[in-house]
Amino acid sequence: DIAMAVEAHFAPDRSKGLLAGKHVVITAGPTHEPIDPVRYIANRSSGKQGYALAKAAYEAGAKVTLVSGPTKLEAPTGVDRVSVQTAQEMLKATQAALPADIGIFAAAVADWGVAEPSNGKMKKDGSGPPALKLVENPDVLKTIAMGANRPRLVMGFAAETADMETHGRDKLVRKNANYIVANNVAPPEGKALGGVMGGDANTVTLLTRDGSEPWPTMSKHDVAKKLIARLADDLTGIVHA
Amino acid sequence: DIAMAVEAHFAPDRSKGLLAGKHVVITAGPTHEPIDPVRYIANRSSGKQGYALAKAAYEAGAKVTLVSGPTKLEAPTGVDRVSVQTAQEMLKATQAALPADIGIFAAAVADWGVAEPSNGKMKKDGSGPPALKLVENPDVLKTIAMGANRPRLVMGFAAETADMETHGRDKLVRKNANYIVANNVAPPEGKALGGVMGGDANTVTLLTRDGSEPWPTMSKHDVAKKLIARLADDLTGIVHA
Repeated sequence: DIAMAVEAHFAPDRSKGLLAGKHVVITAGPTHEPIDPVRYIANRSSGKQGYALAKAAYEAGAKVTLVSGPTKLEAPTGVDRVSVQTAQEMLKATQAALPADIGIFAAAVADWGVAEPSNGKMKKDGSGPPALKLVENPDVLKTIAMGANRPRLVMGFAAETADMETHGRDKLVRKNANYIVANNVAPPEGKALGGVMGGDANTVTLLTRDGSEPWPTMSKHDVAKKLIARLADDLTGIVHA
Repeated sequence: DIAMAVEAHFAPDRSKGLLAGKHVVITAGPTHEPIDPVRYIANRSSGKQGYALAKAAYEAGAKVTLVSGPTKLEAPTGVDRVSVQTAQEMLKATQAALPADIGIFAAAVADWGVAEPSNGKMKKDGSGPPALKLVENPDVLKTIAMGANRPRLVMGFAAETADMETHGRDKLVRKNANYIVANNVAPPEGKALGGVMGGDANTVTLLTRDGSEPWPTMSKHDVAKKLIARLADDLTGIVHA
């Protein structure tokens, strides 16, 4: 088969990679929740950490499905990207991508959507700003991690502005995850809201069921490689146990 | 002066351009209104039309200040870009760029901001979604067009989902603009909200104080060139009157 020969030639190490033969599903980026045809609520997420994870998982030999909210990033070579807008769409696309050996939930999913998006553009009519009625969105991580098709290993992300470890550990337990990668997104003293996300470096603490490991600041690509190596290790441990 | 010689060599027509010696201020892109450190309200605007106008104005010889909300676009060569996030910041930066001969307001400025953005990330605490209290933002176009430093020609944009001409003309009068470029952003029958923006083509109606001209569908670059040619023409008319 020519395609296989070409692939073998250009990526000789993928077939021997730590995740060869495995399927990894990764969510990344923000979600956009429509208010009306021209407005929406968004989360500040560049998608960089999730995309770096997709690249690292692919390079480790896995088949990778990347369920991505709107970002300005190109899909990493070889990765199967499914583009979505809302939390509802992200859940559906992630469920459709199962079964998988590993699920990594790096997307910044909106906790709330707008109850009844308007079909027409909302206007200033002199009566003051409208009230925005919000409704709770599905929790993608929790729904998948509690579901029948749960991947063997589930890794969630938690962007926190305070009590990172407490909130992260609470998430790990409540959402039935194997790991929570917690990072602090509080604006530095004197900086504006939202100034901290979108960069190329990340300082994370890896929370597992056994403990917590604060990692030094690294590039998002190095964080991705280290996380994928850890997941591959633990998956091998499970398979061999 | 070497810099001038180089410029003259590569852009021999700019000094003879229709807008040579003029200053054009252009707003473009969406604004982002923070809810908390990780969430914000945004408008669906790619910024493409505003950036195309900046390029066309520069090529016509003008000094161009582009006040831009967050987009994924690169600043056109030679254009002085000022990056902003919120409507408040956009107004301030635009006022700081005056005086100007022409003001073009292509940005999709949020009508409403969030009353009291939270310094900490808002949490799901089981008590249901929070109420989002909105406040009216400053109207950038109107404030500038009514202000002491008003550019000689003021062009606004109006994205509408219904009654394009009525709403556009109402804006023209209320906001003291010379032109409104109205375009229909209603989703086509059966399409999702927000599916129509961000493309490379535009179908606009140019509303002036004298009448209205529906233009055929063109690339955003062609729309930009035609609008700049029109503005240059009218400015010459005023200057010579």
